[in-house]
Amino acid sequence: LDMSPCAEARVLVINTGGTIGMMYHNNVLSPEPNAFVKTLRKLPILHDEPYALQTHMYDYYSASGPQENTLVLPMPTRHADELMKGSCSTGSMLCLRGAAGVTLAESQANLFEACWIPGGLVPALNGVLAGRLQLSKQNKRIVYSVLEYSPLLDSCNMTTDDWAKIGKDIEKHYEKYDGFVILHGTDTMAYTASALSFMCEHLGKPVILTGSQVPIFEMRNDGRDNLLGALLIAGQFVIPEVCLYFHHKLYRGNRVTKVDAGSFNAFNSPNLAPLANAEVDIKINWDTVWRANTTARFRVSTEMNRNVGLLRLFPGITAATVKSFLQPPMEGIVLETYGSGNAPDNRADLLEEFRKATERGVIMVNCTQCLRGSVTTSYATGRALSDAGLVAGCDMTPEAALCKLSYVLARKELNIEAKRKMLSQNLRGEMIADLQGAKLTLSDS
Amino acid sequence: LDMSPCAEARVLVINTGGTIGMMYHNNVLSPEPNAFVKTLRKLPILHDEPYALQTHMYDYYSASGPQENTLVLPMPTRHADELMKGSCSTGSMLCLRGAAGVTLAESQANLFEACWIPGGLVPALNGVLAGRLQLSKQNKRIVYSVLEYSPLLDSCNMTTDDWAKIGKDIEKHYEKYDGFVILHGTDTMAYTASALSFMCEHLGKPVILTGSQVPIFEMRNDGRDNLLGALLIAGQFVIPEVCLYFHHKLYRGNRVTKVDAGSFNAFNSPNLAPLANAEVDIKINWDTVWRANTTARFRVSTEMNRNVGLLRLFPGITAATVKSFLQPPMEGIVLETYGSGNAPDNRADLLEEFRKATERGVIMVNCTQCLRGSVTTSYATGRALSDAGLVAGCDMTPEAALCKLSYVLARKELNIEAKRKMLSQNLRGEMIADLQGAKLTLSDS
Amino acid sequence: LDMSPCAEARVLVINTGGTIGMMYHNNVLSPEPNAFVKTLRKLPILHDEPYALQTHMYDYYSASGPQENTLVLPMPTRHADELMKGSCSTGSMLCLRGAAGVTLAESQANLFEACWIPGGLVPALNGVLAGRLQLSKQNKRIVYSVLEYSPLLDSCNMTTDDWAKIGKDIEKHYEKYDGFVILHGTDTMAYTASALSFMCEHLGKPVILTGSQVPIFEMRNDGRDNLLGALLIAGQFVIPEVCLYFHHKLYRGNRVTKVDAGSFNAFNSPNLAPLANAEVDIKINWDTVWRANTTARFRVSTEMNRNVGLLRLFPGITAATVKSFLQPPMEGIVLETYGSGNAPDNRADLLEEFRKATERGVIMVNCTQCLRGSVTTSYATGRALSDAGLVAGCDMTPEAALCKLSYVLARKELNIEAKRKMLSQNLRGEMIADLQGAKLTLSDS
Amino acid sequence: LDMSPCAEARVLVINTGGTIGMMYHNNVLSPEPNAFVKTLRKLPILHDEPYALQTHMYDYYSASGPQENTLVLPMPTRHADELMKGSCSTGSMLCLRGAAGVTLAESQANLFEACWIPGGLVPALNGVLAGRLQLSKQNKRIVYSVLEYSPLLDSCNMTTDDWAKIGKDIEKHYEKYDGFVILHGTDTMAYTASALSFMCEHLGKPVILTGSQVPIFEMRNDGRDNLLGALLIAGQFVIPEVCLYFHHKLYRGNRVTKVDAGSFNAFNSPNLAPLANAEVDIKINWDTVWRANTTARFRVSTEMNRNVGLLRLFPGITAATVKSFLQPPMEGIVLETYGSGNAPDNRADLLEEFRKATERGVIMVNCTQCLRGSVTTSYATGRALSDAGLVAGCDMTPEAALCKLSYVLARKELNIEAKRKMLSQNLRGEMIADLQGAKLTLSDS
Repeated sequence: LDMSPCAEARVLVINTGGTIGMMYHNNVLSPEPNAFVKTLRKLPILHDEPYALQTHMYDYYSASGPQENTLVLPMPTRHADELMKGSCSTGSMLCLRGAAGVTLAESQANLFEACWIPGGLVPALNGVLAGRLQLSKQNKRIVYSVLEYSPLLDSCNMTTDDWAKIGKDIEKHYEKYDGFVILHGTDTMAYTASALSFMCEHLGKPVILTGSQVPIFEMRNDGRDNLLGALLIAGQFVIPEVCLYFHHKLYRGNRVTKVDAGSFNAFNSPNLAPLANAEVDIKINWDTVWRANTTARFRVSTEMNRNVGLLRLFPGITAATVKSFLQPPMEGIVLETYGSGNAPDNRADLLEEFRKATERGVIMVNCTQCLRGSVTTSYATGRALSDAGLVAGCDMTPEAALCKLSYVLARKELNIEAKRKMLSQNLRGEMIADLQGAKLTLSDS
Repeated sequence: LDMSPCAEARVLVINTGGTIGMMYHNNVLSPEPNAFVKTLRKLPILHDEPYALQTHMYDYYSASGPQENTLVLPMPTRHADELMKGSCSTGSMLCLRGAAGVTLAESQANLFEACWIPGGLVPALNGVLAGRLQLSKQNKRIVYSVLEYSPLLDSCNMTTDDWAKIGKDIEKHYEKYDGFVILHGTDTMAYTASALSFMCEHLGKPVILTGSQVPIFEMRNDGRDNLLGALLIAGQFVIPEVCLYFHHKLYRGNRVTKVDAGSFNAFNSPNLAPLANAEVDIKINWDTVWRANTTARFRVSTEMNRNVGLLRLFPGITAATVKSFLQPPMEGIVLETYGSGNAPDNRADLLEEFRKATERGVIMVNCTQCLRGSVTTSYATGRALSDAGLVAGCDMTPEAALCKLSYVLARKELNIEAKRKMLSQNLRGEMIADLQGAKLTLSDS
Repeated sequence: LDMSPCAEARVLVINTGGTIGMMYHNNVLSPEPNAFVKTLRKLPILHDEPYALQTHMYDYYSASGPQENTLVLPMPTRHADELMKGSCSTGSMLCLRGAAGVTLAESQANLFEACWIPGGLVPALNGVLAGRLQLSKQNKRIVYSVLEYSPLLDSCNMTTDDWAKIGKDIEKHYEKYDGFVILHGTDTMAYTASALSFMCEHLGKPVILTGSQVPIFEMRNDGRDNLLGALLIAGQFVIPEVCLYFHHKLYRGNRVTKVDAGSFNAFNSPNLAPLANAEVDIKINWDTVWRANTTARFRVSTEMNRNVGLLRLFPGITAATVKSFLQPPMEGIVLETYGSGNAPDNRADLLEEFRKATERGVIMVNCTQCLRGSVTTSYATGRALSDAGLVAGCDMTPEAALCKLSYVLARKELNIEAKRKMLSQNLRGEMIADLQGAKLTLSDS
Repeated sequence: LDMSPCAEARVLVINTGGTIGMMYHNNVLSPEPNAFVKTLRKLPILHDEPYALQTHMYDYYSASGPQENTLVLPMPTRHADELMKGSCSTGSMLCLRGAAGVTLAESQANLFEACWIPGGLVPALNGVLAGRLQLSKQNKRIVYSVLEYSPLLDSCNMTTDDWAKIGKDIEKHYEKYDGFVILHGTDTMAYTASALSFMCEHLGKPVILTGSQVPIFEMRNDGRDNLLGALLIAGQFVIPEVCLYFHHKLYRGNRVTKVDAGSFNAFNSPNLAPLANAEVDIKINWDTVWRANTTARFRVSTEMNRNVGLLRLFPGITAATVKSFLQPPMEGIVLETYGSGNAPDNRADLLEEFRKATERGVIMVNCTQCLRGSVTTSYATGRALSDAGLVAGCDMTPEAALCKLSYVLARKELNIEAKRKMLSQNLRGEMIADLQGAKLTLSDS
């Protein structure tokens, strides 16, 4: 063969629906079943058919599904050049097709930032680095397979069941892929990212949600860049987190919130810096990447409690409103308070409703309605709520707090005190840690 | 006399409470009655006692309250110089003490930006400008009187009654002052600013809310700059709006939201640029300042409907939760939806609850839970809500929408259709206008 | 015919070179003659071959150059839908092919913002607007022809001659096209944009420079979005300025500077807000668009004086250095001073060199070395320079000031006083106006 | 005594001049000798006279200069409370007056962030933390002495001699103080900060430059906050760097540049995040603080070479201009190139001038004229310059590169190759390190 497959990373794309794959019909944007992959196949930037044919890729991967759902990204030109003329042709290149994805040691990974110097005529790699680069994932081909949901879902309609389905699909295909990309509507993407972050226990591979504000089939759109960036990061870097990628930035999934309904820059991670930035180069902020201290086996816990809710405080809120919101079957709520976790402290009627709810076992988490900031247990107005039994939500987003509550309340093996304690602990990097984590706090801020 | 009062602008400061005036006692921050003014009197930057004595200021203003509640800002040095040596001593300066505040024509006001050139040794004013400047309010002394509420209020505890009290106090003292500054805790300041903007009808003078994250008595604090900036703008510029001033920026009051619980830059106006910036110079963005086309007499409408609420959508919200939230006596709610006003459209049970509420006369306004963006009536998922009877909230903040709803529902003279129409109209610059306002939209963006 | 060309806007793309069109050869990025258009033709997002064939486009435009250099953008789906089913098929659509570009009255143009609502299922256009839209340029096809320079130029190597060549090409093809896009390397793009803004007199059509940090042939790149945005704006909006389009923003060309060597967001316009933003929608800031009050005929003045230079002040600069820099044949320099136009005022030797240069006819413009800010004549340290004969550069970038100097010094018909006066006037929106322009200043800030 | 001095940190303030201390006389801003300290003494926020008297502070420190030049900041109320009622009164508090400043181990320092919770009624410190806090510097009184230069200097007029004078004064008083604050005009503050960073060898205490855009005696000004923040950080934290503090942010001194001539937010550190942020709390970014691996004794090297210059490339620059700029006695220049270090590569005449200069021993450093970005040796257009003998300046600011060049060229003990090598190494955190520092690069970005 004149062109043999040397190194490929495999990514599973789960297309749940959303604007990214919609098309216009009769003046109406709507999802079109089975159209997404077909269209991607025609975009040379997202699929390299000659490579697929030359390397018999379809034969090789036929076991993992119909050939038409497997695509391969083109090789970046500069890397392709090196690959063809470099150590690969001399046989020193490892042929990794079929292997489940060799993961670099962290220290090595740090060295292999994809380096692209604008305006440059020669790549910024000296011999040593270039040689090592062959072993990294950075010049692997990204082979990706698309698993499309039927029906395609509007993210407004997503429920706990849909989160579970996504989680189960990740678990089912976990071993065969190096990373996962979840295509999703933007409206509830922050909720789904938060939910998956808790459901995925002992995660060792990247799971990246993305989507777009304008369909990928429109002339000007943000879908192509978002999909491409998510694929490249999922296939090339060992970032064992549930992430959200949008507008050149990779965020921790349980830290984001949708902040702009009308801009390409739709998401923000108000209390944590992005994990990566992908403009001219892909720069990973390795200090921020979350790594659980565990060798336990990956599993997806799909048990989620549905009797949870979000309640935002507002001036004049009545005890009656609070009471009706807290009535059974409600088992847990996130209370969006003012500022650093404040609520009226002269409203005995309100505090009484909170206390009664706590006493009958409802768990309440105190989060701020400010975009940015943190709630602590340690001072007065928050103390009134703390005395009424609320758990301090620190700097969690309401989206993350709601999903964490749903996840924790479903732990049937735990009593209520254990659940409250679990809620106040940092499980997936969703909040700053407690006293022991003071150092983390500093680097988080 | 060697120093006669030539031009003074009068500002009423209503101190409702909040962090800005708190002090430490026994390790606890708390409001201290009657302490705020006393402390201000000792800060030379906030009170010029020699001027007050030389000009017999206290005698002059004794009618407006106890002398110890009236203070006067020092004159900025450069202006003081001009005043003493310039046209004032030649008799050409108008003596305005006692006049109710001459307001400049708009075109003139545009010319008299306070110009301060950093690093400069000579003021940037040529003769002509400096001459005219004497007639502007820019070198008036700011004489301010403090009206302190008893008890001082934590903003978390503010209610509709407190808004009404503030409104009534503005109305009562409206003629005697050129502008009003409301000191307020930050937690619900955006709600109060929104409420006052609707309650104040045909407003012709500035009403500026401010406060601080750190008490004015602390060594490092943001209270001094916030108070000083609010006083200077309230006394010097004809900006006939309810505004919020914080961290060098003046915002339209019904456009802001508290976005950061732990930074001096605590507020943001996501869908409208600031009205003014006060760093080295005070720069007014006159194109954005709202001017009602009216010659009607100023009045404060304190009728507000209390049976209103904020409900945020979240995945898995149940029809039961919605139903209980909407039950009587609730008369109006702001629904915080996804993205550009979207909600589940496959949830017949939810939509049915909305429809039933509408049918029994509850008015619902659709606002986005995104920090930035707009809700329109014109497309599908929003259309499901529109069909269910919700009013599109355009780019209103939830805070503004809640207060507008409370204001409109209290118009007993209107039938329900007139109320719904009023809600969808731009009343105080709180949202982009409808079709007729397309041009405004462009300059807003 | 089943598909007739109804409305086309024509854009001339002048490809001068730069990263956007480079390719890798032997590990080296380099420009490849005649490759750019060929590659664009293969990208469906940048060329719609079926449309070209169906409408016999190549026959029609054969006069304007070889067929292979003419391409046509696809129609955005939603517009295409309307076009096919809307008024076009009923014959009410104007057929504009061949017409030289009907320009909308400004008031109309304001109404026709391209409105794209993310997440929406139905376009946000009511019947009336949609009807009118047919007459706007917003649903015209963009037909563009590429004129490639030979050799392709690295922007580092660009000279006054190259600016003149570009100007002459715009002039030569001015009548046949609705707008112009200049592909250019990023390194000196701000200089070229400034130079063209002065060379183009009485410009009535958009001239938009763009390029990219990563070649358009790379997998992840910013070239496609930049080219597409520039084409759409050049073909659809009457913005009669020399502009620079980069990373979703349109800037006035003589206001930009390259601020980031390694980000997609490479340019900034520190003293003027962008003219347009092109994310989900293209939003034009019409208040800022510059319109000369002239009906004079467009012409390009390619006379530029080459004996000009940029000199940045630094502590310890010697009179000898200044003297040698100012020696003949130097005829004009831009002096990059500190802060608001300050220089040492205790350095008689330096000031003496400036004075001597002024006396022998060298013209010097005082610009700040700060990214943002303005230089005025009206105060002391600036006054020392003013006394030494320097012209205040207000808020011009050094790039704009250098090109303006080169342009003004070439006006042989003017004496030196007239040249100095011309330099201190606002010619193309490159700086805030003088006293008469006080109002402009306010809206600029 | 009822109030004994427990813990004091001593800071030396060197007032070199600048806007912060200017006053208006006859419409002209000018420095006023001996006025600054007198005025500070009257501002209760900047001096606590009762404390000074009660503790006999003036007697104690009389050796270090006239009593009227020594001031003491008030104690933040909450800390004062703790101090009086806490462990201090029980005798467990260390009395540190007279000690030269106990420095905390780094790990401890990390724990003691000054924690101030807005809106809170009780400090966020539990017993354990509060107990430890007594040992930290965080509740020390800041006693500061002002050393005023005569004459006071306009920063435009600063020279190498003035830098040396400041350096020598730091050296002279190094042992007696815990930290140093340098008051300085903003125009050349970035140059002076860079120069001092190189001159101060083995620095173990904070040296912080600050100043203001508006004089501290004006009503609205940024001088008070800047002075207060600099004093608190210099006295409380062991940040052994030459820093610049402005508008609530602490920057590494050799990383900043003045970016705005007319805003309080005048400085920027384009290629390195701030070292600290001081809004509600003072948050130190300890990961970024630079610590030399040395136990060598602090010394100030005032030898600086004056024959250095800054030359900015521009299109059309002539070989004659370059030649005259490079002529003797010039020994080193910083060349401000395009983008990532690019220059014309088709201009044999220019490159020849560079080569000739190199051959006669002139050292040239290649820095970008972009605000943000880096220059590397490793690719072509930069390579042309590299071949011509230029040293790659990486991501140094031109200000830092100029001062480093001046510092290195003065090392008479080094031959030219050693000087070139020294220039390409990271000496004081002024640039990203070389290959060995790859990890640093990652955390820098």
